[in-house]
Amino acid sequence: MTMYDRWLLPDGIEEVLPSSAARVEDLRRQLLDLYRSWGYQLLITPLVEFTDSLLSGLGTDLDTLTYKLTDQVSGRTMGIRADITPQVARIDAHSLGQEGVSRLCYAGSVLQTRPGSLLGSRLPIKVGAELYGDSSLAADIEIISMMLETVACAGLGRVTLDLGHVGIYRSLLADSGLDSDQEQAVFDALQRKSLPDLKLVLAPLADAGRRQLILELASKHGDLSVLEDVPYAAAAVAELHEVRAAIEHRYPNVDIYFDLGELRGYDYHTGLVFAAYVPGFGQAVANGGRYDDVGEVYGRARPATGFNTDLKALLDLLEQVPLASAISAPVGSDDAMWQRVGELRGAGEIVICSLSGEVDPRCDRQLVCREGDWQVEIL
Amino acid sequence: MTMYDRWLLPDGIEEVLPSSAARVEDLRRQLLDLYRSWGYQLLITPLVEFTDSLLSGLGTDLDTLTYKLTDQVSGRTMGIRADITPQVARIDAHSLGQEGVSRLCYAGSVLQTRPGSLLGSRLPIKVGAELYGDSSLAADIEIISMMLETVACAGLGRVTLDLGHVGIYRSLLADSGLDSDQEQAVFDALQRKSLPDLKLVLAPLADAGRRQLILELASKHGDLSVLEDVPYAAAAVAELHEVRAAIEHRYPNVDIYFDLGELRGYDYHTGLVFAAYVPGFGQAVANGGRYDDVGEVYGRARPATGFNTDLKALLDLLEQVPLASAISAPVGSDDAMWQRVGELRGAGEIVICSLSGEVDPRCDRQLVCREGDWQVEIL
Repeated sequence: MTMYDRWLLPDGIEEVLPSSAARVEDLRRQLLDLYRSWGYQLLITPLVEFTDSLLSGLGTDLDTLTYKLTDQVSGRTMGIRADITPQVARIDAHSLGQEGVSRLCYAGSVLQTRPGSLLGSRLPIKVGAELYGDSSLAADIEIISMMLETVACAGLGRVTLDLGHVGIYRSLLADSGLDSDQEQAVFDALQRKSLPDLKLVLAPLADAGRRQLILELASKHGDLSVLEDVPYAAAAVAELHEVRAAIEHRYPNVDIYFDLGELRGYDYHTGLVFAAYVPGFGQAVANGGRYDDVGEVYGRARPATGFNTDLKALLDLLEQVPLASAISAPVGSDDAMWQRVGELRGAGEIVICSLSGEVDPRCDRQLVCREGDWQVEIL
Repeated sequence: MTMYDRWLLPDGIEEVLPSSAARVEDLRRQLLDLYRSWGYQLLITPLVEFTDSLLSGLGTDLDTLTYKLTDQVSGRTMGIRADITPQVARIDAHSLGQEGVSRLCYAGSVLQTRPGSLLGSRLPIKVGAELYGDSSLAADIEIISMMLETVACAGLGRVTLDLGHVGIYRSLLADSGLDSDQEQAVFDALQRKSLPDLKLVLAPLADAGRRQLILELASKHGDLSVLEDVPYAAAAVAELHEVRAAIEHRYPNVDIYFDLGELRGYDYHTGLVFAAYVPGFGQAVANGGRYDDVGEVYGRARPATGFNTDLKALLDLLEQVPLASAISAPVGSDDAMWQRVGELRGAGEIVICSLSGEVDPRCDRQLVCREGDWQVEIL
């Protein structure tokens, strides 16, 4: 162990230094205030839970992303949260147990065993909102609106909204005769949009016409016209049309794009899926979708839709904020000075005591005593 | 695995529901704004690091509190942070590498293998501030002042400040002839204030007079008079006098108490140690101390002092905030309504769309259209 090794951080694990941390904090507050103004209540979910509650009924993707620990108190296996949405679903289903609609939001770090992309973080700061108890499209439209306002809040410029619908894929797989392992393999291959793999895993499917439709799904993306030649899954296609119309009306500056092979996330989505893209960033800056009935394993099946974003991923896209300027004050026990310093701090100023006579480089003003009166002067 | 088990959380691991989470968030913002106004810059430290950097040179206490993981990328051992202070010291020593004074603050969850007390949390939300590069008492007085203002910010009523000094204990152990294991045993027994244990582990110490002085340390607590009969460690005693005078002058309402057997924390403190107590809560609500030279293993020995508090521990002491009232709005694509809703939200109001006609119970007002004009009316 050399000294060099001691300050190395693991790959994909970052610290956020003051120049960026202030911007992350500002944006965190803006977003939580935005969600609050839409009626979403803040939750703080635990960093670890028993894997039995953290991963129940959620497929294998999230499981392999989750670090496991043995609880020293109970001896049971705990997982470190790799996603916050399932925790919020558990809390809605069990801890809150509220009838009717519940609107919840959150902000917190998650840890993943491997990054989502080659240079991605394994320690994103997830901020998001979830809506339970309403299965109407109005709920999805509310969540998509909030996702778009989230991107606008970050000031990221022109946004493209990517819409898909897991129901289209599901309708093609219905009664396919594939077992659950085979279905999982098709899902994985389509999610990766790997045509060779997709051909391979579709081989056991007897119906050649259906094989072809699933293969075509991987390349069904583009403008409104991609919806035109989908002769199946009429209900899902109608939902995509309706959401497009509503969002286009509310946010005329947003470009809308369809991607019917997009399945999103960790295999728990059941309906509409959506993502926001901005120029200069290859991945979605925010995404989400409908995931009805995830709470069933906790005793309550509920309609659900939500989205989230990663504050750290947004960081590179954000403008740096200039360091706030500060006022230097001498060390001392002068009552009048102490009172003046308190007033300035209360009014939002930064006042830094020059402990050993050294003035902090952020200071452009100083507090000086002129004829018994403490005044702020230019340094 | 029954359904009941699935929603059990591990002992000492809590979720924070909306009624409390809003208050935690408010206090978090107030405290970070307070520290900002004193010139402290926010850092976001990573949730995990290699144990080599997380635990270097910090004694065994913190090590046994830290959960370990194998990094799937590098195969090396990572630890989940159980304390944020050593991370901030590493960042000051290495990542920032700033000459002169640096003032840093943070807010984030830590995970511990066992709770600090019988019913305590294993997942506190630590908020704190650290000051590097100044070895003067003025730095400790600044940190103690911020700790007292933190407690005042939370509105916890009359505060008792508990002062101690590790230098008093160190001066008694200097040249004692004990090896480091024996010294560690004395430290642990004194920290637990266990006289039988202390007698046992002090047996190898030849000097009977010194044994007696160390035993007496465990009961040296009370008002100013406990400082009077300490004929050794004159420099440490002088520091305690000076800090008391300065704090008493600034905060005349704070009660000051001395505890010379208090060693604080994880064995890395080197000088003054301090804690804040409030009525009705058996443990310190905030504590800290001087810990010079922790950054040495990262290449830079620096004077250091700081404090922290646990937002979750404060929760039980805080008044509940009443739920904010909200305005109900119909679902729809009416442009004038949409604009009015945006204005109300921008002005800090909570506006909740009644998706399926159901009005959220938080709403005491509603948005209605009167002669083409959208108005807020009492529900």
